[in-house]
Amino acid sequence: MRKIAILGIGQTKIDEHWDKSLREIGGEAAFAALQDAGMDKVDALFVGNMLSPLVSGQNQLGTFLADWIGLWHQEAVKVEAACASGAAALRAGLMAVAAGEIDSALVVGVEKMTDKAGHDVTAALATAADADYEVEQGVSFVGINALLMRRYMHEFGWKHADFAPFSINAHANAMHNPFARLHQKISVDQFEKSSMVATPINLLDASPIGDGAAAAIIVPAEKVASVNGRPRIMVAGSAAATDSIAAHSRKDPLFLSAAYESSRRACGMANVETKDIDVFELHDAFSIMSALSLEACGFAERGQGVRLGLDNEISPNGRVPVCTRGGLKARGHPVGATGMYQIAEIVQQLRGECGKTQVDGAQIGMAQNIGGSGATILTHVLKAE
Amino acid sequence: MRKIAILGIGQTKIDEHWDKSLREIGGEAAFAALQDAGMDKVDALFVGNMLSPLVSGQNQLGTFLADWIGLWHQEAVKVEAACASGAAALRAGLMAVAAGEIDSALVVGVEKMTDKAGHDVTAALATAADADYEVEQGVSFVGINALLMRRYMHEFGWKHADFAPFSINAHANAMHNPFARLHQKISVDQFEKSSMVATPINLLDASPIGDGAAAAIIVPAEKVASVNGRPRIMVAGSAAATDSIAAHSRKDPLFLSAAYESSRRACGMANVETKDIDVFELHDAFSIMSALSLEACGFAERGQGVRLGLDNEISPNGRVPVCTRGGLKARGHPVGATGMYQIAEIVQQLRGECGKTQVDGAQIGMAQNIGGSGATILTHVLKAE
Repeated sequence: MRKIAILGIGQTKIDEHWDKSLREIGGEAAFAALQDAGMDKVDALFVGNMLSPLVSGQNQLGTFLADWIGLWHQEAVKVEAACASGAAALRAGLMAVAAGEIDSALVVGVEKMTDKAGHDVTAALATAADADYEVEQGVSFVGINALLMRRYMHEFGWKHADFAPFSINAHANAMHNPFARLHQKISVDQFEKSSMVATPINLLDASPIGDGAAAAIIVPAEKVASVNGRPRIMVAGSAAATDSIAAHSRKDPLFLSAAYESSRRACGMANVETKDIDVFELHDAFSIMSALSLEACGFAERGQGVRLGLDNEISPNGRVPVCTRGGLKARGHPVGATGMYQIAEIVQQLRGECGKTQVDGAQIGMAQNIGGSGATILTHVLKAE
Repeated sequence: MRKIAILGIGQTKIDEHWDKSLREIGGEAAFAALQDAGMDKVDALFVGNMLSPLVSGQNQLGTFLADWIGLWHQEAVKVEAACASGAAALRAGLMAVAAGEIDSALVVGVEKMTDKAGHDVTAALATAADADYEVEQGVSFVGINALLMRRYMHEFGWKHADFAPFSINAHANAMHNPFARLHQKISVDQFEKSSMVATPINLLDASPIGDGAAAAIIVPAEKVASVNGRPRIMVAGSAAATDSIAAHSRKDPLFLSAAYESSRRACGMANVETKDIDVFELHDAFSIMSALSLEACGFAERGQGVRLGLDNEISPNGRVPVCTRGGLKARGHPVGATGMYQIAEIVQQLRGECGKTQVDGAQIGMAQNIGGSGATILTHVLKAE
C-alpha cells in the first residue's frame, strides 16, 4: 500500500454546543486541520458520523460538510460503523489515497448529540446493538456493557473499585486537554459513590456524550518532509475487523476478537509488536472496555487488564500509557467523532505537544476505535519519523 | 489505479417484503452475488444504505450484514450518501481493492422501507435534503423536485405530458425484469390522469419506494479471465462529485453539475466519450431527473433532455437506451440499494442477459446514482472485454 502521512489535525472542544450547529462544529475541526496542514483545499472529504439522521434529521453528511467548508464539487462521502465511524472514515480515506485515486483527503469525525433529550439519545445509541435480538429485549447499550462487566467481575474475581484507576487516570489527564469535555479530577471514593447507571456500571464508569468534531489531513508520504521542524507522522498500520453484532452470539463475550484481529493486522503492517507501542488511545466507552481492550491487544493476560491500572502502569509515565488526553471517559465521547479525536491525540503525542501528559520520547502510537459492544473494531498505528 | 472486474451480481425482487427482515433481504442479494461469482468468501464487505437507523433502528450495517452472511471477523463498513449510498459503497470497495489492501470485496446496497408508515418514510427521505435550510421550511423531498420540474417547464416551454415517455419506457422495460417492483404498462393518458403528489409531479412521475437489495463481487482484473464463456466486466471508470446540498444554493438549479463532473471524470478514466455509451442506467427518481441527467452528461442540450424521450431515442433499441430494466420508476427505488441495482443491470446488459430489453451488442454501459436533489452524484462506466 502507498505510504501515507498525516499532515494536519484539528479538534473542537467537546461540550454541549447548543449555540453551534452540526455543520459549524464539523467545519471548525475541518478548518483547524486545514490550517494545521497549511492547505486550503483537498481532493476529497470522508466524514465519520453515527447519529445525524436520528438526532439532526440530516443524512448525506459528506456532501453536507463539503458544501459548508467550501470543497465544492469535490468527492465527499459519509462512513458509518457506530462508535467506530471516525476511524472507519479515516480508513476509507486511506484506501482512496493509497489507490492513487486522490492525492489528499480531509477526514472529519463529527457528532452533535445534545440537541435531543437524554432518552432519545439513549435510544439512538442503541442502534449500535442488534435491533432484532438485543434491543427488542429492552436492553440499552449501557445495559449490554453492564452484563459484560458483571460477568468479568464474576469470572475473574475483581470488585468494582478495581476499575477505578482507568477513570481516575482519564480524568487526571483530561485536566491538561483544552478540548476535553470534563475538567474534574476524581478519587476512588467518588468513583465508588457515583450514581448507578446500570449495575455495576455507574456514572464514573461511563463516558459522557457531547458535541464535537476532530479532523485530519492525509497525503501520500512522499509529498511530505518533516514540516516546520515537526516529525513526519506516518500511518504505519491500519486494519478493521468485525465480530457478531450481538454480544451474546460470541463464543467468548469477554474476548474482543475484533480488537485482537485488527491490532494484530495493524501491528503486522507497521512491523511493530505490542511492546513497541509507546502510547495507546483505547476506546474506554465504559471502564470494562479498557480492561477488555488491553487484554485483546496483548498488553495484559486474559482477566488481568484491570491489574495494569492497579499497578499504575497506564499513566503517561507508565509502561502502557492510555487515555493520555482524557480518553472517552473525560475527553468525552461524541460517538462518530471519537475515532478521529484518538488519531489527533496520537499525532499530538508523536509531535511532543502534550505538555503535562506527554509520554516521553513517544515514537509509536496506537489508536483503537470500537463500534458496538465489540462488533466493529479499527486499529491504527502511527509512527513519528 | 489497479484494474478491477465485477465477477458476480445478485438482486432481490423489490417489493413490500413484510415477511423478510433487513438482514434477510441483504443476505439474499449477497448470497446470490457470491453464487454468481462462484465464491464462498471475500475479504471485505461494503454496504450502502440510507435509512436503516430511521426505519429499522439499526446502525453499523456493515458488521450487521457480515455477521448474518458469515463473513466472520472480516472487514465491513457502511457507506451513506443518501440515495447514492449504493454507488458510494461500490466506490469505497473499489478504492480498497485498488489500494491492494484486499483482494476481493462484496458490495451490497440494501434498503428496508416498508416497515414504517408512509409519512415516517417521507420524513426519513427528507434527511437527504438540507435539514436547516430546506426541510425546516416544510418542503418534502418530492416538493424540492417539484420546484425543479416546474421551473424547467417554465424556462424551456415543455408541458407535463412531454415527460411521459420516460415513465412509459421505464414501465415497459420493467415488464421483462423479474426483480422489478411494478409490472404494469402505462399509457400517456394514464400518465396525465395519475394522482397528483406535489404539483407538477404526479404518481407516474415519481419512483416507488420498496424493500430490496442488490450486490456485486469485485476483484482485481488480473485474477479474472472470461468466466464460463461470459465476458469479463471491467470497472473502466468511477467518479464521485458533489454540489451544494440545498437546491436553492446552486447557481443554476437546473444543471446537475455533479452529474456533469462525475460523468466527465468517469468517462475520462474509461477513455470513452458520451457517444460511446451503449446503455445508460440513470437515476430517474422523478421524471425531471431523467431530463436533467441526460443534459448534464452530454446526451442532450440544455433544456432538451425530454426531447430524447419524445423522439423515441431512450428505448432499448434507441440511440440512448435508459432504464432498460425499469429504472427507479418501475424497477423501484429502495433508496440505498438503487445504485447497486443499476450496476447489476449494466452487468446484465454487458453479459447479454436482458432478453426482450437487451441492447444489441452492448459493450459499454454507464450507471449514475444521485443523492439528494443532485448533491452527491457517482458515475461508473463498465466495459465488456
